[in-house]
Amino acid sequence: MDISRLAQRLAEAGQSHLLQFWDQLSPEEQAELAFELESMDFKEINCFFKHAMEASGQTKQEKVDARMEPVPREVLGSVTRDRESLKDWEEEGLRCISQSKVAVLLLAGGQGTRLGVSYPKGMYDVGLPSHKTLFQIQAERILKLEQLAEQHHATKCCIPWYIMTSGRTMDSTKEFFSKHKYFGLKEENVIFFQQGMLPAMDYNGTIILEGKGKLAMAPDGNGGLYRSLGAHKIVEDMERRGIAYIHVYCVDNILVKVADPAFVGFCVRKGADCGAKVVEKTNPTEAVGVVCKVDGRYQVVEYSEITLATAEKRSTDGRLMFNAGNVANHFFSLPFLKDVVNTHEPQLQHHVAQKKIPYVDTQGQLIKPDKPNGIKMEKFVFDIFQFAKNFVVYEVLREDEFSPLKNADSQDGKDNPTTARHALMSLHHRWILNAGGHFIDENGTRVPAIPSLKDGTDLPIKCEISPLVSYGGEGLEKLVNGREFHAALVIDTRGIHEHVKNGL
Amino acid sequence: MDISRLAQRLAEAGQSHLLQFWDQLSPEEQAELAFELESMDFKEINCFFKHAMEASGQTKQEKVDARMEPVPREVLGSVTRDRESLKDWEEEGLRCISQSKVAVLLLAGGQGTRLGVSYPKGMYDVGLPSHKTLFQIQAERILKLEQLAEQHHATKCCIPWYIMTSGRTMDSTKEFFSKHKYFGLKEENVIFFQQGMLPAMDYNGTIILEGKGKLAMAPDGNGGLYRSLGAHKIVEDMERRGIAYIHVYCVDNILVKVADPAFVGFCVRKGADCGAKVVEKTNPTEAVGVVCKVDGRYQVVEYSEITLATAEKRSTDGRLMFNAGNVANHFFSLPFLKDVVNTHEPQLQHHVAQKKIPYVDTQGQLIKPDKPNGIKMEKFVFDIFQFAKNFVVYEVLREDEFSPLKNADSQDGKDNPTTARHALMSLHHRWILNAGGHFIDENGTRVPAIPSLKDGTDLPIKCEISPLVSYGGEGLEKLVNGREFHAALVIDTRGIHEHVKNGL
Repeated sequence: MDISRLAQRLAEAGQSHLLQFWDQLSPEEQAELAFELESMDFKEINCFFKHAMEASGQTKQEKVDARMEPVPREVLGSVTRDRESLKDWEEEGLRCISQSKVAVLLLAGGQGTRLGVSYPKGMYDVGLPSHKTLFQIQAERILKLEQLAEQHHATKCCIPWYIMTSGRTMDSTKEFFSKHKYFGLKEENVIFFQQGMLPAMDYNGTIILEGKGKLAMAPDGNGGLYRSLGAHKIVEDMERRGIAYIHVYCVDNILVKVADPAFVGFCVRKGADCGAKVVEKTNPTEAVGVVCKVDGRYQVVEYSEITLATAEKRSTDGRLMFNAGNVANHFFSLPFLKDVVNTHEPQLQHHVAQKKIPYVDTQGQLIKPDKPNGIKMEKFVFDIFQFAKNFVVYEVLREDEFSPLKNADSQDGKDNPTTARHALMSLHHRWILNAGGHFIDENGTRVPAIPSLKDGTDLPIKCEISPLVSYGGEGLEKLVNGREFHAALVIDTRGIHEHVKNGL
Repeated sequence: MDISRLAQRLAEAGQSHLLQFWDQLSPEEQAELAFELESMDFKEINCFFKHAMEASGQTKQEKVDARMEPVPREVLGSVTRDRESLKDWEEEGLRCISQSKVAVLLLAGGQGTRLGVSYPKGMYDVGLPSHKTLFQIQAERILKLEQLAEQHHATKCCIPWYIMTSGRTMDSTKEFFSKHKYFGLKEENVIFFQQGMLPAMDYNGTIILEGKGKLAMAPDGNGGLYRSLGAHKIVEDMERRGIAYIHVYCVDNILVKVADPAFVGFCVRKGADCGAKVVEKTNPTEAVGVVCKVDGRYQVVEYSEITLATAEKRSTDGRLMFNAGNVANHFFSLPFLKDVVNTHEPQLQHHVAQKKIPYVDTQGQLIKPDKPNGIKMEKFVFDIFQFAKNFVVYEVLREDEFSPLKNADSQDGKDNPTTARHALMSLHHRWILNAGGHFIDENGTRVPAIPSLKDGTDLPIKCEISPLVSYGGEGLEKLVNGREFHAALVIDTRGIHEHVKNGL
């Protein structure tokens, strides 16, 4: 194999060390490495590194705090403070959906590393009575929402689902959907595309080898979305389908209201090109990024960038001044997304994430560092808020809409399978009560609406309602009003199932 | 032993079964049982039972929801919404303390059953770097507050500490204080007294035997306080000392601001006879009682008594309408407390708590029931709010003031030693930052103010400040301003101690 041209390119980019073990590789390993290296644009990567490091240096010097302003009330819609408008927004959203103008864009590139699994997070079963995975729950919400919009407007419609995977999750994701027949969705309306990868580098810009013939590669952040949309001509596909509005979200939120008609309707009514769904941050030291204005432009300030004094600032109403907690649920108009992909994305610099990156030393020994030894370069999906001309914020209730799955179950853990399962079942429990149903215990006594959660025990009420029965709590009165149920209760398209001893 | 008179009394009260195993008891057991029974007023106990069961039946029939009104803004003081008044309230409180007008009343009758220990909760060490117990932390806060008041007003003063134990915790509590030399307080200013006990009864009013010669006894609830104050002439002791205001609290809150001058000062300025400290309830299904008005009188409505619809009600500002979460921190004027003890307490009915109560069957076999088989009768400390003529509510921040210790550490647990330890160290971390100090990691890099709490790991910053150094964050600038610290950081009266590897 002649690698002189490749060696030349690497030398010009200062990355010659990538071939240092070349002679020790098998022919197959050589071919694989050469193939990977051939496809990479080292000049561009070096450029990314230079700009990312420069930007990272700047933010450290110039504290963001002094330049932060809260979201003004006039761009904020709130499910608790604008209740009189909710119905109107929801109807507007359903109208848009019924006209097949709304698409959903799922960020599913991450692997469940912190969750302790090697497959995509969307394939995780949090232990609901139905044992549905996150992918299935979300697919069924889309299906149900299509049905609701069709019923409201006596028409057929479709919500296409664009799913961004990464190199590592593409094959297993596609297989999973195919095996499960797309959970009832039409195959042609589920569109997979792959986000880009970038090499990890040390602090001098040298690409890190994690094996003698293997680069340390990582996905380029959820903001890699925009480059990837361009590379795979997704915006063109959306145009072809007549899409006008896009709801973007992350796979890990079990409560996510996919294509939420109220959120979409609010943004549409406000004439927004870009919108963010948020939950109220109530504790100053909660580890959540906040949507705010910096130098007059909207952005998310991450919790690690903010000083305590700013995090503790309060408005006269007593709320935290910077309380718009980002939950990675965004709205884009198609023209805005198109502008981002075609014009703005290349201007965005990567963020630097310092990481412990396993590497091979000059002897070819794998070393696992115990402190950060290099960086991964990432863009964030919210980096493009700054380009919005009419940005809006929509505040929802955490207990109704946000419970991310990030960690494995463990002592004092949060955002884990147990908290996700509880969040969903608690929501469905509330739906039953609000629809006039009641829960009774083994003695036939009605159980209080607010359960007492003593030391580590599971929820007293297990209750799961299929998204195919109800998208957001609607349509349950006729099933449950005035009735008494034992938990566990499961309501799906086949009917109502009660199991006194949790023996599902 | 002649028990004919006792047998006669029992027969009249319908409790003759208590002697059913008499002949099988040893002389010592007989003496003990007779002694216990002699001291009990069965007519009164039967009366308690009758009224408690009647009251419990009524509340079930007549839902409290329709009669609930929220706390009006004019009786509410809030640390987030009335920031301009805080300094004034605190000064008023310090003035009262400096005049030795403020006493503290600790409810410490409970054993750490749910916590998994057999000794009083106040003796628990949650695992702080200093390994201080809850009792020591609270004692040192009292000491420091006395010093602060003395410094402010150039006078000597004293905050007497009344500690209510139960029959089960009295001896070990007293021993513990004696062994630790009252943690620096004067012995004569720490006054122990014992709360009453009541027998558990089955649903027919029959007292339950938990052994052949042993009644199933339980403390009469934290509202047993008032009867106990009367029985031990505590109000008279307070009068003798010139006390005018009393702060009552529960032992299990590691963040409790004992004799909180801002709370006391607020109540005094408002001319209140009774006040409750609350934290904002933000999630409708949080298991916390709420302070509100029912039929025009103040009370705490427990979470188990409220319907979901009421719990979810919101004011126009978006907050929960019933959001005054009770944290068992109350203020009483001495005249009010005296009235309660002398006049109102006897009118209060006991609440009924259905429990699984181990009992001996007619063969003398111990049976552990797997569902509730009887009741314990309890009064609650907040039952007397209804008698207040000028009731006020003081809203504080949960993260600053409330983290109760209830459960043992366990998966997904809350209110356990880990959460208590984290709450205290997070507060002290914030004190350091707000006083101009910084934390750096092992590489000398400043650590972000808001730590990222990944999967089950402990706090990145361990920081504990002795109450003898700072009561509420005051006085730290001169120690830490502009300085950088490694965690773990401990500041006590001997100085500043840093331990890079948590090796305290």
